[in-house]
Amino acid sequence: RLAQYLALTDHSRAGPEVVDQAVRVLETVSAASKDIKLNLESHIFGGCAIDEVGEPLPEKTLQACKEADAILMGAFHNIRFGSSIYTALLVGSIGGPKWGVHAKVRPEPGLLKLRKELGLYANIRPANFASDALLAHAPLKPHVCQGVNLIVVRELIGGLYFGTRKEQGVAPDEDTAWDTMIYSVPEVQRITRVAAQVALSADPPLDIHSIDKANVLASSRLWRKVVTETIEKEYPQLKLDHQLVDSAAMIMVQNPKKLNGVILTENLFGDILSDQSSIIPGSLGLLPSASLAAPPSVPSPDFKPISGLYEPIHGSAPDIAGQGIANPIGTILSAAMLLRYSLGLEKEASAVEAAVRKALDDPQAGGLGLRTADLGGKTSTKELGDKIVETL
Amino acid sequence: RLAQYLALTDHSRAGPEVVDQAVRVLETVSAASKDIKLNLESHIFGGCAIDEVGEPLPEKTLQACKEADAILMGAFHNIRFGSSIYTALLVGSIGGPKWGVHAKVRPEPGLLKLRKELGLYANIRPANFASDALLAHAPLKPHVCQGVNLIVVRELIGGLYFGTRKEQGVAPDEDTAWDTMIYSVPEVQRITRVAAQVALSADPPLDIHSIDKANVLASSRLWRKVVTETIEKEYPQLKLDHQLVDSAAMIMVQNPKKLNGVILTENLFGDILSDQSSIIPGSLGLLPSASLAAPPSVPSPDFKPISGLYEPIHGSAPDIAGQGIANPIGTILSAAMLLRYSLGLEKEASAVEAAVRKALDDPQAGGLGLRTADLGGKTSTKELGDKIVETL
Ligand SMILES: CC(C)[C@H](C(=O)O)[C@@H](O)C(=O)O
Ligand SMILES: CC(C)[C@H](C(=O)O)[C@@H](O)C(=O)O
Repeated sequence: RLAQYLALTDHSRAGPEVVDQAVRVLETVSAASKDIKLNLESHIFGGCAIDEVGEPLPEKTLQACKEADAILMGAFHNIRFGSSIYTALLVGSIGGPKWGVHAKVRPEPGLLKLRKELGLYANIRPANFASDALLAHAPLKPHVCQGVNLIVVRELIGGLYFGTRKEQGVAPDEDTAWDTMIYSVPEVQRITRVAAQVALSADPPLDIHSIDKANVLASSRLWRKVVTETIEKEYPQLKLDHQLVDSAAMIMVQNPKKLNGVILTENLFGDILSDQSSIIPGSLGLLPSASLAAPPSVPSPDFKPISGLYEPIHGSAPDIAGQGIANPIGTILSAAMLLRYSLGLEKEASAVEAAVRKALDDPQAGGLGLRTADLGGKTSTKELGDKIVETL
Repeated sequence: RLAQYLALTDHSRAGPEVVDQAVRVLETVSAASKDIKLNLESHIFGGCAIDEVGEPLPEKTLQACKEADAILMGAFHNIRFGSSIYTALLVGSIGGPKWGVHAKVRPEPGLLKLRKELGLYANIRPANFASDALLAHAPLKPHVCQGVNLIVVRELIGGLYFGTRKEQGVAPDEDTAWDTMIYSVPEVQRITRVAAQVALSADPPLDIHSIDKANVLASSRLWRKVVTETIEKEYPQLKLDHQLVDSAAMIMVQNPKKLNGVILTENLFGDILSDQSSIIPGSLGLLPSASLAAPPSVPSPDFKPISGLYEPIHGSAPDIAGQGIANPIGTILSAAMLLRYSLGLEKEASAVEAAVRKALDDPQAGGLGLRTADLGGKTSTKELGDKIVETL
């Protein structure tokens, strides 16, 4: 069966527009290969699911996600991706002022539940897609951000996000609210192994910088101890150091190349540092992310797809939704990660990344110099998609 | 009685060198004024106290701090500052590789205990000391960092730092460790009032940006609600908005001027964001901080000193200790904050800041163009102090 893309009717957010282009990219890759066939399905999720059925993660969507080989999420829409071998899924938006923090039903619990139910403990956020053409737009001086090569590996289903909590207004002590940052030895071991696998996938292997607040927090002392032991015992060839989270946030602006390599950290610190890192390498927040339930696949004859969820790290841009001008690059690069990590298609993933780089690069550098509105240009979402597909 | 500075014998860290210069600045201010007399005492604290007596905060130091009108801490040494009216204190270092996170006795609990015992709930970290002369050294492009005017107001004795915790190895569940992020309504009210006072001390008043993770954490939802209610009810003239911590960390690099004003946040987020902000305005981490047990003093006839602890936010630089080349500016600017917030001496505080700016400014701009080693120059710690004192 060849790819089938189910268009969404809900165009109140920028999601569908950018996902359209990522789907075309996946279809192009699939059409060019005799091994891959896509089987795409679309499902509602997040904000639009609240609007339609009153909850952010409907049971049907969750089931479909569990059966899919990989999930591609627009800033608002996910795509379930597949073939005779693989399946994929397209769903709804996560944020927007309409579903604010004091709303009765909020989208975020849907995302957290999806992560937890699928066991997606490893969030990989590469901040190494440097485009020379974008350096002019970067906030950091060129000599500071050129050559930055960071990959954040964030633990995604532990820590403050999933520990016991108590809301204000609940007895006892109605006037207090609390959350628990909790980690166990096996949780830290498995995320350390993912970081090590990511570090080893580069040649030479990358250094690992583990980030914590071990000078204050008990959970961070456990973190530091287990990371150290796991690397020493299982990956003695890798270089590991430890940084305090406050200091890491400072270094990341002052001299980010000092952190080149894999940044291994717990859920909340990873949330903060990966957002911060996403604009460092001149990439302006156009970066992708992968959330996996196991270490990334290594291509091999008996390769099995690794279930994963892929999404751009940028927000939903409700202000420009429906105008056809949103930048699809974060989602297209997420599709590339999907090819790489879930399906083991390294060659195809690199080809997508090269096509994106070409679209952005200046004509003098052999590129097309295309710019969507966020980068001060006039290229539409679809035009940019057209050119990337053409290059592919 | 005139100021008496008790020289420290422990020169194993950069602390004493930079504190020397800050003390000279305070002495100069005091000599020029008939109202202020200084009475300085020195006490051990942190790393050097562990070395000497086996604990980071000896009872004698704590008592002296409680009696002092204000405390000035070098990156490693604190100075108890006083006069017939005021007293001040000079103590020891907080960090260094020697007292690492797995050491039996660590310096940090001493700092945390000192903050807690003195009730220093309000940490004020202005990141608005922009020196045009330093922009060349700043990592951000000039148009991004010029005009940045941030003041971080961080809650300092609540949240994850002081909630219940359990270490790994302690029953039940030896294999887990956890910390609690807890806030109560009154804790959030009082820090909100400090932020409001700081906002009102500028003309026109500054905007307040409250930072939390209310889309996930119960304690953040309480935080957001109480901040909103307190400002609406008590300070309706102030402008308030809310940002998620991940997004704030991103904006602070991408376009920090968007956050100009007071950044109001809880302990851990404040730890991270204030370190990050400290290098944004071209100030390269040379910034001061104040920790107060009450809103800052407003000059008035019945003025009473507000007990506070003042310290540079930069670390201890054990690598360059004892060479007389450390940069004393963070500590000197901390002394200026001490004059402003604890003693209500706004004119004197501004004079110190102006003298520092003159020392740094380029000769074409009427400055002295002095640079210590960290800024690529050859000026010694003492020379820089000499010139600042001379200007004063
Ligand atoms: C939407 C929110 C719950 C989420 C998180 O904090 O994990 C987002 O910020 C992210 O980083 O994916
Ligand atoms: C030394 C450490 C405990 C401290 C903190 O985290 O509060 C420091 O980083 C600071 O910001 O003053």
